[in-house]
Order: sequence, then C-alpha cells, then structure tokens
Amino acid sequence: MATINSAYRKLASGYLFPEINRRVRSWQERNPDKKVLRLGIGNTTEALPQAICEAMIEKVEELGKRETYTGYGDEQGDGYLRAALVEYYKKGGVSLEMDEVFVSDGAKSDAANIQTLFSIDSVVAVADPAYPVYVDSNVASGRSEGWDENLGMYKDLVYLSCTEENGFIPPLPSQKVDLIYLCNPNNPTGAVMSHEQVKRFIDYARKNKSVIIYDSAYSEYITEEGYPRSIYEIEGAKECAIEISSFSKFSGFTGVRLGWTVVPRSLVCEDSKPRELNRMWNRRQTTFFNGASNIAQKGGYAALSGEGYEQSRVLVAYYLENARLIREGLQRIGLTVYGGINSPYIWAKTPNGIDSWTFFDQLLDQCHVVVTPGGGFGPAGNQFVRVSAYNHRENVEEAMKMIQENLMI
Amino acid sequence: MATINSAYRKLASGYLFPEINRRVRSWQERNPDKKVLRLGIGNTTEALPQAICEAMIEKVEELGKRETYTGYGDEQGDGYLRAALVEYYKKGGVSLEMDEVFVSDGAKSDAANIQTLFSIDSVVAVADPAYPVYVDSNVASGRSEGWDENLGMYKDLVYLSCTEENGFIPPLPSQKVDLIYLCNPNNPTGAVMSHEQVKRFIDYARKNKSVIIYDSAYSEYITEEGYPRSIYEIEGAKECAIEISSFSKFSGFTGVRLGWTVVPRSLVCEDSKPRELNRMWNRRQTTFFNGASNIAQKGGYAALSGEGYEQSRVLVAYYLENARLIREGLQRIGLTVYGGINSPYIWAKTPNGIDSWTFFDQLLDQCHVVVTPGGGFGPAGNQFVRVSAYNHRENVEEAMKMIQENLMI
Repeated sequence: MATINSAYRKLASGYLFPEINRRVRSWQERNPDKKVLRLGIGNTTEALPQAICEAMIEKVEELGKRETYTGYGDEQGDGYLRAALVEYYKKGGVSLEMDEVFVSDGAKSDAANIQTLFSIDSVVAVADPAYPVYVDSNVASGRSEGWDENLGMYKDLVYLSCTEENGFIPPLPSQKVDLIYLCNPNNPTGAVMSHEQVKRFIDYARKNKSVIIYDSAYSEYITEEGYPRSIYEIEGAKECAIEISSFSKFSGFTGVRLGWTVVPRSLVCEDSKPRELNRMWNRRQTTFFNGASNIAQKGGYAALSGEGYEQSRVLVAYYLENARLIREGLQRIGLTVYGGINSPYIWAKTPNGIDSWTFFDQLLDQCHVVVTPGGGFGPAGNQFVRVSAYNHRENVEEAMKMIQENLMI
Repeated sequence: MATINSAYRKLASGYLFPEINRRVRSWQERNPDKKVLRLGIGNTTEALPQAICEAMIEKVEELGKRETYTGYGDEQGDGYLRAALVEYYKKGGVSLEMDEVFVSDGAKSDAANIQTLFSIDSVVAVADPAYPVYVDSNVASGRSEGWDENLGMYKDLVYLSCTEENGFIPPLPSQKVDLIYLCNPNNPTGAVMSHEQVKRFIDYARKNKSVIIYDSAYSEYITEEGYPRSIYEIEGAKECAIEISSFSKFSGFTGVRLGWTVVPRSLVCEDSKPRELNRMWNRRQTTFFNGASNIAQKGGYAALSGEGYEQSRVLVAYYLENARLIREGLQRIGLTVYGGINSPYIWAKTPNGIDSWTFFDQLLDQCHVVVTPGGGFGPAGNQFVRVSAYNHRENVEEAMKMIQENLMI
C-alpha cells in the first residue's frame, strides 16, 4: 500500500508565480482588450546575444553530422565549460578546482536539490523575504510541521527579517541553525551585502559548523564597488559555503537553462569527512541528473569570454537602465523604493501600509501592471512589491506612465 | 551544526558507468596505441535527424531576435509539446489529458526524483537486474539500511529476479510492496513483457494499492507485435502507474536532454485524495525544476511527427540492425545471448560461468571491447554482460571481428 510523502501536504497554497499567473489570466479574461504590462516574474525579454546564438547553432550543426555528433556528456558538465567557469572565477581573484564546479540546468534546480545533502532534522534559516524555492524545497522534504496561518510563516524554519531599519540586510540568527540561505544581490529586495556583511555570516557558520547556501545568480548586476561577486572572495568561505549561480539573468538563458554550483573540497560540516560533501554532490548529480543540454553548454561557454561576454554585459546594462527608470518613476509618484542599483529588482513599499496582494490587484486593475506581491516572499514582504526590470524598454516606460497617470493612492 | 544526509553513506561504490569509465581510462593509459571499441554505455552515436536540427536552429534564431525571443516557459513543458505528446499517445490508442503529461530534461532525472512523492518507509521492488538509478535514488533517500556484501543487494529493497528460467520477465513480488519499478523493453536484459505479463503487475498493484513506475524509454525499439508501447494500453494502468519516457534513444537526444513523465489524474495510492498525486508531481516540478531547455523542446516537437518522426525511425532501425549483428556475432562464437530484437541491448551470458566484471576485463584486454558488466545492474546479472548497439556500424563490425578472433574462452 503506497502512501504519499505527507510533507507535501504541509506546503501552503501554490508556488508564488503560478498563483500570479492565475490571477493575471483571470483578469485578462475579464479585460480581453487591455494590454498587460508585466513587471512581475524576473523573465528576460531581450534577444540572446549573437555570439551565443552562433555558438549554439554551430553545436546543433555538429549534432547533425555523424563525425561531430556527441551523446551523453559528463553529468557534472562538459570539461571545457567547467574549465571556463574556473577561469571566470579566477578573474575575480577566486581560485577553484574543476571538480569543485558542477554545471546544471539552472540555479532553481540546484537551489531546490542542495538540501538533500543534509540531514532531515537540519534547522534551516532563510532571509525574510526570500526566493520561495529555498523554503518550499525544505518544507516538501519534511523540515517543517506546516504553515502557521497567524505568523504567515512555516513552522520550524528560522526567518531572518530584512526590514527598512536594517537596510534589508539579514541579521545573524539568534539561535543555532544548520543551513543558511543567502541571496546576494538579493532577490527580491535588490539589496546587496558588502564583504563585511557576508563575512559576519561566514564567521557565524564556521563557529557553529553551519553551511551557507549562497545564491549569486544576480552577481553580474553589481555596478558599485565594495560588494562580492562570489562568496569565495571572502576568507573562510570555502570551508562553509556552497555557491549557486546561473546564466539566466546574465545572458538571457531563462528558457535555454544553464547554471552551476560550487561545492568546495574543503567544505565541511559537523559530521563530514574531508571532501565528503563535494563527493556527495558529485554522487547526487551523477545519480539524479544527466547533465545540462549540450547545446546550452556551448552557449554558456560563449557567454563567459570575448564577444559573448561583452554582449551579455550590454544585456545587463539594458536591464539596469530599466531598473533606474522604474526606481525613479516610482519615486516620482511618492512611493518609497529600494534596490534597483546593483540589482534588476526594485523593492517598493506599498502606499498607506496596504497589503502587498491588495496593491498587486490595484496595480493590475488601475494600471494594467503586473508586479510580484512581497508577501509571496515571506511576511517581511507584506507591505512591499517587487518590480522587475525584465521587459522591453517601451513597456517599462508605458508601465511607469500608466502608474503615474492612473494609480490612485 | 549541519550534519549530512547519512543515507548517502549507505550507497555502495560509485555509480556503475563512472566506474566503467575509470577502468577504461586506466586501461587506455596503459595501452595508448590501441583503439577502444565502446559497446558499454547506451550512448547514441549517429547524427541527429535533420528535421530536428532545423527545428532547433530555427528556435535559436528566434531567441536571437527581440521579436521572437522567449524566456521562461511553463515548468511542466511548453503547451505545444505537451499537446504533441498527447497526440503521440493517441496514435497508440491511449487517451491522456495535457495536464497529465510533464516534460522534463530526461528520463533519468524523473526516474530518480519520482520516489520523492512517496513516504520514506515505502517498500520498493525492482527487477533484478535493473537500471541502477531506480535503486540508488531510493537508497540515497533513506529506504535502505545499506549494502549487503554477502547477497550483493541493498537491504530492505525487494529484488524480482529475472533469469533464463523465467525468460527475464520479473515475477510478481511474493510480499506486499509499495512501489514497483518496471522497464519495458528492459534495460539491461533486452527482454520485453507482453500485455498479459504487464497486466499481472497492474492487477497486483491495484489489489495492493501499490504504484508502478514504468520506464518506457525504449518503446520505439519494439519491432514485434504483442508488446505494449505504453502501460496505459492496458486496462487499469491509469489507476496505478506512472510512465516515464525519453527522446534520448528514440531521436538521439542523449546529450540534448528531453524526456517526459505521465502522472494520470486517476492515479491513487492508499492515502491519497483524488488527483493528489498528479498535483503533487506538478508541485514538485514547479518547485524543483524550471522546465526543459526551450531549444530541446522544439527538437522534441519535430521528432514526434512528419519528417522528424520518419528520420527518428530510421535512426532506431540503424541501431536495431547493429543489435542484430551483435546478437548473431556473439552467437557465432558460441555465447548464449538474449534480447536485441525489440531492444538495442543484448544480454550475453558469460562463458564458463565466470563473473561479469572478469568477463568485462577479459573483453577489454583481449578484444579492446567495452561492455557493461551485468553485476552492475544487480546480482541476477552476475553472469551476464550487456552489449549495447549504440555505436557506428563499422565499430560494431570491428568489435565482433575482434571478439571472434581474440576472445579466449
């Protein structure tokens, strides 16, 4: 008699983005003649860089010829791409071995699956607000007794509250925790932790033998000095941190799918042997995964150097200019906004303290603009919405115009 | 103090194929001037069909233009591909709804992850021999107390022994089990279960409220009448079976990565509500996965109809002809062989009852031919090797010649 993994029943209502999609579809059905301006999901909109397209077309053509066809690659990623990622880190002053880098089909999968390396009774800390995948993957795996309706939080998880008062920089846990998820630059707040601020977490983790899961998917959006692009720029990180990153937001690979994870050889936790965690992730990936698409990997390689890199930087600059327009556009109507400088996300405070889903509905109804309700990222987001810079410039401009002309606050 | 998922320590030595790779690399280093003939891993070698390449190149070109660029697709797969898969099943007389079909990055990932839907105390039955992913994913998730060195089996798993006597058709479990993994046509034995033989498992599953995980990745290799291409051809399967399949062996997508899983709405187990398992897999995929590569999905769509389908059938026929050459070539030197008619795999009995790893080493040393030791698939494989039809025709011919001329038995 098969029985289900009952931890799934502990999950609260649907994953945030499907829920937003449902609301928008329903609104669109009621308003079929109106144009929806989407600044919700962080979904890239601009053309893939030409050098990347060329590399991928070349790979498809090679697959079409018997002499150059290739089948399975290494589950950990093709050697040339792992080597290129090592070089990419080296430019930032970080030295890694090839077998510490694991190519994947994207940061989301890795961010969700990485928790399987750790015992089920691990105490998990997340920034509040946080990317829902960190939370949901742990709940679905049995690390919570369920949703606490009153607090708007999952039981047994530790929420590190990011507020205006602390500049949206997560405080250290006040209790002992085993795993700590950090995203820097942050999704959704757009805040960035400095070297010093990340260092405090590394010191905490080393002292408590905790492991930091560090999501650097937005590191290419850092425009100002003084912020780490990789956690490994900071001393001691290799002993306590796993880094997860992605080509999605850097080179427009949201649909192409490609990411990577670094599990340093020297990473340890309370009961692990030397190199054990690195080998465990290797075992996990060789058993549960069969490598990223070989076409996507060629594209990723092209993105890391030469023209492909330059063109990707142009793409990032385009979205950052959108972010500036949003930030300034929302400020103009008197909203309090954060982020959007070293990040494609603007974290906007709702007017008059209204709830984030209410403001979501209001922006959709009055301005036809979709944003992401901050409450979907955790209770500290209840009076914020995330506005994404991922859209065509003209749509961003139109959205700002619609908001400026039609929003009733 | 983070601690590891200690279930990983229950896993015996490395996953089968990395182990083979290590042995071959070591041999090649000792014999740098010799050509290795690889009939081990089921890795496709022939050019990807032109219609599929064209479809993928067209998609990359669309990604390279702002007007036609697309980012994130649905995690469950793009609608056009799910619809095409529903049509593909319909041609075989199987009627599915679109929301019962989930596109993924390949059958391996799904086969490994599907067990997360079920409770950790599920009793798992696997055919012996079996694709190692079924076993290893369950062990890594905590369903075994570890490897039993004497039996050459994992404790707590139920092995359904497939032997010459039963024609390599797994017997029904003699005890109650919760999950049953079946692969048909079978990897590694090349045997195929008839409708009637599969029906016995469906009857067992419905009576015991077990769930069958049915891997049909090789269904396009069925050349004879009387064998099901999908488990849903058989009455009652939608109440008790999940089907996992793949474009890898059908259209040469081993490196491109694309597969799918069917979780019927009517699938139930002991404690599930109506549609709950279908919704759970949807939740799993939307939380832990972000969709297959949009380029691969266009390729998969091209593979399902018209020219792409015809060209894929030619590819399958090519490998099946290789299988015939291997089957007959090995028979010629007096080996007892099975499979290779409705399957790209030949299951060859080792001569004089020697162990499969010994025969593996012998074939490598004497004939420079790599096969897969049957023992890697379970104890019932200890006196067999799997010979794969995936190689160029001339290499298959050369391998048969090398074996015929040099094997000392």
